[in-house]
Amino acid sequence: MSHDRLIYLPLGGAGEIGMNAYVYGFGPPERERLIVVDLGVTFPDMDGTPGVDLILPDIAWLEERRDRIEAIFITHAHEDHVGAIGHYWERLGAPVHARAFTANIARRKLEEHGLPPKVVTTASIWPETIKAGPFTVGFLPVSHSIPESSALVIDSPEGRLIHTGDFKIDTTPVLGDPFDRALWEGVAKDGVKALVCDSTNVFSPLPGRSEATLAPEVETLMREATGMVVATTFASNVARLKTLAYAASKAGRSICLLGRAMRRMVEAAVEVGILTDFPPTVSPEDAQTIPRDHLLLLVTGSQGERRAASAQLAQGPYLGLRLKEGDTFLFSSKTIPGNERGVIRIMNQLSELGVDVVDDAGGRYHVSGHANRPDLETMHAIVQPQILIPMHGEHRHLREHVKIAQSKGMAGVVAVNGMMIDLSGNAPRVVDYVETGRTYLDGTVQIGALDGVVRDRIRMALNGHVTVTLIIDENDEPLGDPWCEVMGLPVTGRSDAALVDVLEEDLSQFLNRADDKTLLDETKLEKELKRIVRQTAQAEIGKKPEVTVVVSRLG
Amino acid sequence: MSHDRLIYLPLGGAGEIGMNAYVYGFGPPERERLIVVDLGVTFPDMDGTPGVDLILPDIAWLEERRDRIEAIFITHAHEDHVGAIGHYWERLGAPVHARAFTANIARRKLEEHGLPPKVVTTASIWPETIKAGPFTVGFLPVSHSIPESSALVIDSPEGRLIHTGDFKIDTTPVLGDPFDRALWEGVAKDGVKALVCDSTNVFSPLPGRSEATLAPEVETLMREATGMVVATTFASNVARLKTLAYAASKAGRSICLLGRAMRRMVEAAVEVGILTDFPPTVSPEDAQTIPRDHLLLLVTGSQGERRAASAQLAQGPYLGLRLKEGDTFLFSSKTIPGNERGVIRIMNQLSELGVDVVDDAGGRYHVSGHANRPDLETMHAIVQPQILIPMHGEHRHLREHVKIAQSKGMAGVVAVNGMMIDLSGNAPRVVDYVETGRTYLDGTVQIGALDGVVRDRIRMALNGHVTVTLIIDENDEPLGDPWCEVMGLPVTGRSDAALVDVLEEDLSQFLNRADDKTLLDETKLEKELKRIVRQTAQAEIGKKPEVTVVVSRLG
Repeated sequence: MSHDRLIYLPLGGAGEIGMNAYVYGFGPPERERLIVVDLGVTFPDMDGTPGVDLILPDIAWLEERRDRIEAIFITHAHEDHVGAIGHYWERLGAPVHARAFTANIARRKLEEHGLPPKVVTTASIWPETIKAGPFTVGFLPVSHSIPESSALVIDSPEGRLIHTGDFKIDTTPVLGDPFDRALWEGVAKDGVKALVCDSTNVFSPLPGRSEATLAPEVETLMREATGMVVATTFASNVARLKTLAYAASKAGRSICLLGRAMRRMVEAAVEVGILTDFPPTVSPEDAQTIPRDHLLLLVTGSQGERRAASAQLAQGPYLGLRLKEGDTFLFSSKTIPGNERGVIRIMNQLSELGVDVVDDAGGRYHVSGHANRPDLETMHAIVQPQILIPMHGEHRHLREHVKIAQSKGMAGVVAVNGMMIDLSGNAPRVVDYVETGRTYLDGTVQIGALDGVVRDRIRMALNGHVTVTLIIDENDEPLGDPWCEVMGLPVTGRSDAALVDVLEEDLSQFLNRADDKTLLDETKLEKELKRIVRQTAQAEIGKKPEVTVVVSRLG
Repeated sequence: MSHDRLIYLPLGGAGEIGMNAYVYGFGPPERERLIVVDLGVTFPDMDGTPGVDLILPDIAWLEERRDRIEAIFITHAHEDHVGAIGHYWERLGAPVHARAFTANIARRKLEEHGLPPKVVTTASIWPETIKAGPFTVGFLPVSHSIPESSALVIDSPEGRLIHTGDFKIDTTPVLGDPFDRALWEGVAKDGVKALVCDSTNVFSPLPGRSEATLAPEVETLMREATGMVVATTFASNVARLKTLAYAASKAGRSICLLGRAMRRMVEAAVEVGILTDFPPTVSPEDAQTIPRDHLLLLVTGSQGERRAASAQLAQGPYLGLRLKEGDTFLFSSKTIPGNERGVIRIMNQLSELGVDVVDDAGGRYHVSGHANRPDLETMHAIVQPQILIPMHGEHRHLREHVKIAQSKGMAGVVAVNGMMIDLSGNAPRVVDYVETGRTYLDGTVQIGALDGVVRDRIRMALNGHVTVTLIIDENDEPLGDPWCEVMGLPVTGRSDAALVDVLEEDLSQFLNRADDKTLLDETKLEKELKRIVRQTAQAEIGKKPEVTVVVSRLG
């Protein structure tokens, strides 16, 4: 008979920033009772995932153990923590726990998928706890860039774990609970087995700044701007929305929200009662009648998203509102690596309109929601865990974070997605490598990242595509000439004749020479026709296209 | 009869960073004699130009006026200034002038295209000048991040112009000419009509730092590193290579160059005599026999390029050299916006190998080659031009640069690609909008950016592709069922049947119902088949694919 063990298994979020999904388990090996912490998504890009709509963690491992899942806990309402709940809940089927604001967002997502919102229970904060099989879990408030972020205190028969979720140490967070050091010290005082800790800003050497430090700068900007002010930030950063709206209000500006996410987040924050004194807003129609210097537009699209309000306004009139010379556009946000091109495109479009763009350079209008290196060290010092397990970071972040822990005498382990860690003993041990990965939401279908579907699309994007059709008659002879259609390839190449003509000519010559054996062998014939297309295209245009061959046999 | 005029026309580089190509002209309207300054390229990306090999300015306007081109001047050997010379020289046919290092690189490019290297004349520096029609042009040395960068002093009957090229103000540039303020003041003292000025770093508020400031930090790193050191930077930054190599040498490290560009640039610098005392290098084979802590690899790929030495080393052994725990990888470079993902991928791969990555954070190991805002203001003050024309910048850079000029009482004009400016009078006037744009080198073929070829590839990448083939018999009836082949689409969708089966079924049903008129009308038939494929796919998989329809008619 085997002993019980306490395991930690990241299925997403460890080795990347995004797509968070962590599993804890306790019990006999292979029979542990499980809890899931967060079910997030990450976003596709043209480089690696063209045409994909959303990227989700591969939860096959969890689904196969569905009967062992006690509960799902969501730390906060960012898409990389809650975004997969609607897509995946049915496959897991466990009760969901989250604080009010997060629960509100999670329920909306379930409803969008036709799922029952009542599976989400609103959790009270620590010291209240939730029993989930062998675990007792409490929501410990922590500051971040969205309301009601929480760390989780996870008690197991093998001791206490703290899963920080995303956090910063902010004692004046504008909205929600200030970081409460005494509370955290109380939670940690009897010993913490492992601190599973946010690593996002481990490379930021200076202490983090409070959300409250932005207000004076924003107020000055709102007051001094002579035209319309447009401000963009993540819609979920309700504290920032509050700072921007208050500053506008003080400067005599009416506030107009643009973008679905912007309206939905403010709505959710009002519904759950955490945003009680947001200034009144005006509709886009009413905004048109207000003098420009009395108006603030709060808009979505801080990351340059093509269809968001920012991009629309940069391109021309949007909902009757049009930017012009003398207006000011404030990016109260940081550009996430990979989104630079989109953001810069908007900045240049705004420049063409004569709009002054103010961005995060100098940090006057944005602070991060994650703990910087000194703040991580503060957290380590408060919690004093036996083991530090970094999460929410790329490999380089996790590795750096472990180095810090080790330099302070803690045990640390770089555990990436799929690595199952046994935390039962005195030192963490890797006990399994679980097959994990990414699932793509492609249109309405979930496909595996390794299915080859997206790979084929990337190949067509790089190499273009040629369709070859050929009819073979009842006597197994080609009927007429083969026919080519090209897509995404230059019309003419080296020989100055149309590429399709050169391709068809070379294919015809091949068929004229081909023996019966080749003509009868479907696989060989197709392979040869492909080879000729690629070879001829390479000679003509310097590219080897993807090729689809369709041979139709009569009779 | 019309009066002579002095014109400025950017064909590339104004409204973007990259692909520099500027035209100056003097003479009667439409009969100006022309000179070309720089012929550069810019680089494709997966977002907008998948599969494209290189992006060049559209020079159709110039080519049509080929007989009016007096000469081509190249300011320095960066790809965005000289990269198109091999691709375009034949279409322009004018003599090329450049300083020795630049000329060396330009000749190599011409030779690669089978063109005569002798069309490039090596220019001496100011006060020597070159006569080119109505212009007299001198190369005025200036510091930048490549040897022998030059501004051009362009004298015309309408006065003196200064085209800065890329520059910074560096009085201790490690290699080449220090910035010579007295020389510049002398050139400017009799009045400068227009300063056409680099705008890259107009948003950098602090004075630029000298190349020489890096040596102490680099020396410390080379000395203290306990394993192998790998350093990457732009190969053309020969001063940086010198700093890195000297520091390594001092620390007792042998130097091994990896990457074609790295070897070629050092070779060119040695050939023209500007790099006389580079430490001896060892081959990759010899490097394998040297203790790790006595070795520096100087490698290409600072921008995360997939095939460069950096990427290769991050993935495993390369030319017999293998990185491991305890080694140090130095990015002595800045990541150009858009290249973040590639660079971060390499950093994480290195982290997985246990290699310590040191990057530009904090600016200890990299300085920019472009003048920051205060240095631009210094340049304005030295030259005191009548008109400031910003170049080498996106729209936002150009606009900001003009604002600075105007705040100092200079005339300034935002002139983007294709805008022809008449500089003859007291104020600059836009006199024409020339059709310009981008040309793609796609494989071996030059295609227009608006030809739709790349647009089709992007569509296939986003939407996938379906081929439909149908045979119509001698009686104008479908022979058998239509046939579908898909590429880049999920195998099954909503109905759990194979997507191709559902598509073929729906197409068959349509054909069964189709009247003779539709079957006889090629265009209509094709359109309807496409429509059905897109509609069915939308219902099945939530995507509307690109469709190629091939209808073969027998008899």
